[in-house]
Amino acid sequence: MRMYDLILKKREGRELTTAEINYFISGYNCGQIPDYQAAALLMAIFFRGLNERETAELTMAICDSGDRADLSGIPGIKVDKHSTGGVGDKTTLVLVPLVAAAGVPVAKMSGRGLGHTGGTVDKLESIPGFNVTLQPAQFIEQVRGVGAAVVAQTGNLAPADKKLYALRDVTATVESVPLIASSVMSKKIAAGADAIVLDVKVGSGAFMKDTAGAFKLARTMVEIGSQVGRRTVALITDMDQPLGRAVGNALEVKEAIDTLKGAGPPDLLELCLVLGSTMLLLAGKSASLEEGRSQLKNLLASGKALEKFEELISAQGGDPLVTSEFSRLPAAKSVQEIPAPLSGYVQSINAAEVGHSAMLLGAGREKKEAQIDLSVGLVLNKKVGDSVQAGESLATIHANNLGQLDVARETILQAYTIGQKKPEPRPLLIGTVPERI
Amino acid sequence: MRMYDLILKKREGRELTTAEINYFISGYNCGQIPDYQAAALLMAIFFRGLNERETAELTMAICDSGDRADLSGIPGIKVDKHSTGGVGDKTTLVLVPLVAAAGVPVAKMSGRGLGHTGGTVDKLESIPGFNVTLQPAQFIEQVRGVGAAVVAQTGNLAPADKKLYALRDVTATVESVPLIASSVMSKKIAAGADAIVLDVKVGSGAFMKDTAGAFKLARTMVEIGSQVGRRTVALITDMDQPLGRAVGNALEVKEAIDTLKGAGPPDLLELCLVLGSTMLLLAGKSASLEEGRSQLKNLLASGKALEKFEELISAQGGDPLVTSEFSRLPAAKSVQEIPAPLSGYVQSINAAEVGHSAMLLGAGREKKEAQIDLSVGLVLNKKVGDSVQAGESLATIHANNLGQLDVARETILQAYTIGQKKPEPRPLLIGTVPERI
Repeated sequence: MRMYDLILKKREGRELTTAEINYFISGYNCGQIPDYQAAALLMAIFFRGLNERETAELTMAICDSGDRADLSGIPGIKVDKHSTGGVGDKTTLVLVPLVAAAGVPVAKMSGRGLGHTGGTVDKLESIPGFNVTLQPAQFIEQVRGVGAAVVAQTGNLAPADKKLYALRDVTATVESVPLIASSVMSKKIAAGADAIVLDVKVGSGAFMKDTAGAFKLARTMVEIGSQVGRRTVALITDMDQPLGRAVGNALEVKEAIDTLKGAGPPDLLELCLVLGSTMLLLAGKSASLEEGRSQLKNLLASGKALEKFEELISAQGGDPLVTSEFSRLPAAKSVQEIPAPLSGYVQSINAAEVGHSAMLLGAGREKKEAQIDLSVGLVLNKKVGDSVQAGESLATIHANNLGQLDVARETILQAYTIGQKKPEPRPLLIGTVPERI
Repeated sequence: MRMYDLILKKREGRELTTAEINYFISGYNCGQIPDYQAAALLMAIFFRGLNERETAELTMAICDSGDRADLSGIPGIKVDKHSTGGVGDKTTLVLVPLVAAAGVPVAKMSGRGLGHTGGTVDKLESIPGFNVTLQPAQFIEQVRGVGAAVVAQTGNLAPADKKLYALRDVTATVESVPLIASSVMSKKIAAGADAIVLDVKVGSGAFMKDTAGAFKLARTMVEIGSQVGRRTVALITDMDQPLGRAVGNALEVKEAIDTLKGAGPPDLLELCLVLGSTMLLLAGKSASLEEGRSQLKNLLASGKALEKFEELISAQGGDPLVTSEFSRLPAAKSVQEIPAPLSGYVQSINAAEVGHSAMLLGAGREKKEAQIDLSVGLVLNKKVGDSVQAGESLATIHANNLGQLDVARETILQAYTIGQKKPEPRPLLIGTVPERI
């Protein structure tokens, strides 16, 4: 088998065989296939696509390039959730204790933030003492005992994905639906998921800017799940404005705690209920989405979800008192309001610009190696559809560096569009791609 | 400027600027742009193409990646000829002395053969003593004195083309019209051509198998010439069967000499007259193609073209007596006829298979480093449209290795198709793309 022939075949729009896909991934992963041939194939895939079978086989080949997490020691159906990334998305912080409180075992591996999107692991590290690097045995033990654990992705999970992603990132071949889908699904499967709930974001703050693209990605991932025997459901949700109000690590932890207390922003709560009820259904813990939603509401109202979060924090060495005393979380030195330049209704808030603004304050990383400041960020006091008076605060900036503050303020002002007409409300849940059986 | 942005731009079908094209070629040539990014861009170009301006600028950027031959010491318009490669194509051997005899200065840099196509330099080396490695000053001096010189391409001419071609060869991005066209034209311009006559071959023995593709390539190269101020004409000619009868280095030299004596095969003579009259026109040595053709015919009939060849051979250290004594050329040990398996008319002769057969005998190179045998090859006694009796000789094999002889015979028999109906004659000159002014 020659890599040249694979490139030619795909360039001509022909189908790659199982053996050819495995040859490519194993050869590239071990360094026998050079970057330049892989880059040519990736660009040919960008133009020609992959069919369902090819996409599923690519997923499993990437998954099999490294170790798989062994979650067999944890009884029950392990349901994982994945979001394609957005701004202010702290649903994992709420969902993990919430569904764990409902009896779904949550063995969660999470990433760090990059660019304008944040990472769950970074956010959790703003809780003093919280340890995201458990040994595999500890990790399993904690899920068995507490019902949930969240760790940073480490080890040799899907190494071919890391190599391929790094190459796609420098060869303009990221934006390919089968390549994105196989990358996401290979990692979820390697992390041990039995069933997967996908939150595919669409809008200004998402990777997918248009609904059609988001549905295509969602359908492709659900199809992979079906082909490889993992129950998979995808929800297409709005990321045209940031989710909730807080953007920045410690600020998002506070908002997640507020939500677990029943006092969070309505969009964040709604998304957690939508995703959480889907997870309960796939885990076999409820007979319908409605029943699951009502279970979750009860767990929030009774304080059991918040208790579970405190239990999780304690188990991972963190300070559980943060849930009642926010002053125990890192705080920025300077807090400034951004007054509205005119009166009217908020028409839109460009989520990518808000994320960029938070990154400029130090809340996010421009490059993988960058250090971040857990205390800084933004709180949006006005969201789309809200009425605002000139001079009223649009957003609050939490900053440690006054130079960055000025730049962030300009970016935020640019992110907001204020007009005279009250805009039509945009739904949070745009659509669902049900599992294919 | 970032290579990533160039790849993205071309991937999206947008136009690259002059600065971007120069950045790509100079960065890639000096090793600052890695192979994997170049490969991704080449594949994006394969799918999206380049417009006329981009193609012309790419050509000049490749040309400017190295030295240019300085032919300013030679008075007159230097017209170069380029063939896209075929089987049995010895036109350069005939044309160089023929147009030089007409007063067109010919400073010719030629290549060596690769695969099933032969190279002029190899063919000339079958003349005992012929030296194809002249110093630049000697080269110019000889053109000034004799009117013609033929040397092997050496030095630092268009080094970016060598690097790009090697990459295209392993990433399945060879078959792109703007990439082929810019590769050809950059080398011709670097070699000092003022005007260029292109012989674009089409058919079973050519790179371009279909007429539409050949016209597209021809038009693209003529357009480059127009954009960069080199008068350029392209002729689309038949390469569905080999040109002339001889295939193999010394055998082709003999056939070229026969042609200069007025006793060559009609198709070879005709192509030399077509190409040669176009060269005379571009060089300003004739007022029309018809006038040029008649000049050339006179030079053949008077023996002046043959004399010029002898002069050229002597000037480069070769034995000029080869023109009258073929026994001074290398000869193969074994000469065998291939009898026709049935009677009828020759319907077709697959030129690529004939070329492959000659390569198997040792006349050509499978890889760049391979040694070749100048004495071996084939002579086709029957060409398309000829009638043949069973047992009559289709072709003569000249071989030194009896094992290879058997394989070559099988290949030749497969190359010939014999049928009962006399086939419609296929024209040698399929079309012309005139210069764009």
